[in-house]
Amino acid sequence: MNDNPYAAGAAYIDGCYMPIGEAAIPITDWGYRRSDVTYDVVGVWEGRFFRLDDHIRRFRASMQKLRFEPTEDDDEIRVVLNRCVALSGLRNAYVAMDCLRGRPKPGTPYHPTYARNYIAAFAIPWVWVMSPEVQERGGHLVIAQTLRIPPDSVDPTAKNFHWADLTRGQFEALDRGADFALLLDSDGNVTEGPGFNVFMVIDGVVVTPDAGVLEGITRRSVGEICEQLGIPHEIRKVSADEARNADEIFLSTTAGGVMPASRIDGRIMGNDRPGPVSTRIKDTFWGRRAEGWHATPVNYAAATDR
Amino acid sequence: MNDNPYAAGAAYIDGCYMPIGEAAIPITDWGYRRSDVTYDVVGVWEGRFFRLDDHIRRFRASMQKLRFEPTEDDDEIRVVLNRCVALSGLRNAYVAMDCLRGRPKPGTPYHPTYARNYIAAFAIPWVWVMSPEVQERGGHLVIAQTLRIPPDSVDPTAKNFHWADLTRGQFEALDRGADFALLLDSDGNVTEGPGFNVFMVIDGVVVTPDAGVLEGITRRSVGEICEQLGIPHEIRKVSADEARNADEIFLSTTAGGVMPASRIDGRIMGNDRPGPVSTRIKDTFWGRRAEGWHATPVNYAAATDR
Repeated sequence: MNDNPYAAGAAYIDGCYMPIGEAAIPITDWGYRRSDVTYDVVGVWEGRFFRLDDHIRRFRASMQKLRFEPTEDDDEIRVVLNRCVALSGLRNAYVAMDCLRGRPKPGTPYHPTYARNYIAAFAIPWVWVMSPEVQERGGHLVIAQTLRIPPDSVDPTAKNFHWADLTRGQFEALDRGADFALLLDSDGNVTEGPGFNVFMVIDGVVVTPDAGVLEGITRRSVGEICEQLGIPHEIRKVSADEARNADEIFLSTTAGGVMPASRIDGRIMGNDRPGPVSTRIKDTFWGRRAEGWHATPVNYAAATDR
Repeated sequence: MNDNPYAAGAAYIDGCYMPIGEAAIPITDWGYRRSDVTYDVVGVWEGRFFRLDDHIRRFRASMQKLRFEPTEDDDEIRVVLNRCVALSGLRNAYVAMDCLRGRPKPGTPYHPTYARNYIAAFAIPWVWVMSPEVQERGGHLVIAQTLRIPPDSVDPTAKNFHWADLTRGQFEALDRGADFALLLDSDGNVTEGPGFNVFMVIDGVVVTPDAGVLEGITRRSVGEICEQLGIPHEIRKVSADEARNADEIFLSTTAGGVMPASRIDGRIMGNDRPGPVSTRIKDTFWGRRAEGWHATPVNYAAATDR
């Protein structure tokens, strides 16, 4: 038995720490009520954050793009994230940071600029976007009819909860007996899926879409691994047909790393198992993680501070 | 002094009633974390709901489109909404109903279909989208550069919190010294603004966009009033140039009724005050409301039940 009240997860909301079960957003907050919020997620694996500074830098950039001005600076956010993990005691954790618009002050005009923005964060046990079992056989993907929300409506590089298109895509995937949807843009090019970037292996070259996507940090790590392994790689437009005919496909996300697929729109790729290039990149990714690549150790002693 | 603990508002979440200040959504709920939620808002004015059944019918249709299955049926939702207003004792109230996706059960796959959906609702003091002072001089509008999220990504007829485009538009409006943004679709036609439908008066005809918009219930009421007053009206595409050159423009929403504008992209319409057709429709709207048009009296005795 674990008598740590934070064992299921620890949260921080607007200056206060609490067990995850008590962490909630006021129903009238625009962060919920207009999804007027940005966020980021960093992983902790075996007691170490992965690319912590890169995630905090992207979170700050997202806040600036959407004109959020919380009181916490980057160093304070780093302290908050560490403390959430330390309180929970988790060695493998999914660590989220949100910035919410807040609520307008009474008597001010009805406009987002008059609300006081604030930070929320939490650490919970590690979440696999694709379960280890599915990773073993390779994910089954479909290209959804639903199109990804375009960048001239919502900037995909500022991480956001505008997921209705992705959720609709996931229902299409379920209805077609698959695991995950890939969404296209209105020109028929591949963008991304619910919570992940996508890579195609085509004639020995690893390609990933250049536009209409989150600039994923695991996506960037895949580029660095390709560089190190001497695998040619390109960031460019990828048509739906190229995806349907790719030799291999894999996905990348903080909450899962490198996740190979084995089917696309019912077509079996290779021998219905993760392909050789995907597997090599996945194994290199986790091997380098084990070596401490881009790692920042969690300071668990912070749990007993103050 | 008011010693009613619900005086600031009353809420219902997943079976429980509480003062509005205690009403909150778990930070891990997909209703917040993926904006996987639909909602509706009905107004109470002088102790009477306006078009209550129409709002509940649209809420149910939104839930069905997005595959939400809460336990409450329409009669139970009607009881919940009435009880929130009755507990608060408010005579003029903004009454919201949400259906949230919920959280997945532990051990089930990572997919929205495995979550338990639930209803939240609340009544708070009436909110004016456009303050009475601004209604008096007429709202100042701008046509935003940001485009409305298209229907092939997110269905605008299923009321949702995907407002990042509308919020971005509101920042554009503020930067240009205006009150409200109107958003276009990718073909350059007018859609809607943050929380309202829009009407143009062009050569004596009242026109409102036919696509890419919420099918507003106040919008429908405007059509009925035009019918009764013998004012020609059309639901059709409206280009940005038609809007910029319109004789009059007015907005419609539950939280404000019929709200006239007086400027568009810096151009003054008429004499820089609400135009005659807009004013006639607005006055008729509130006049008919006072007569009990489409009204359902709140049963305030429900506050003392059970």
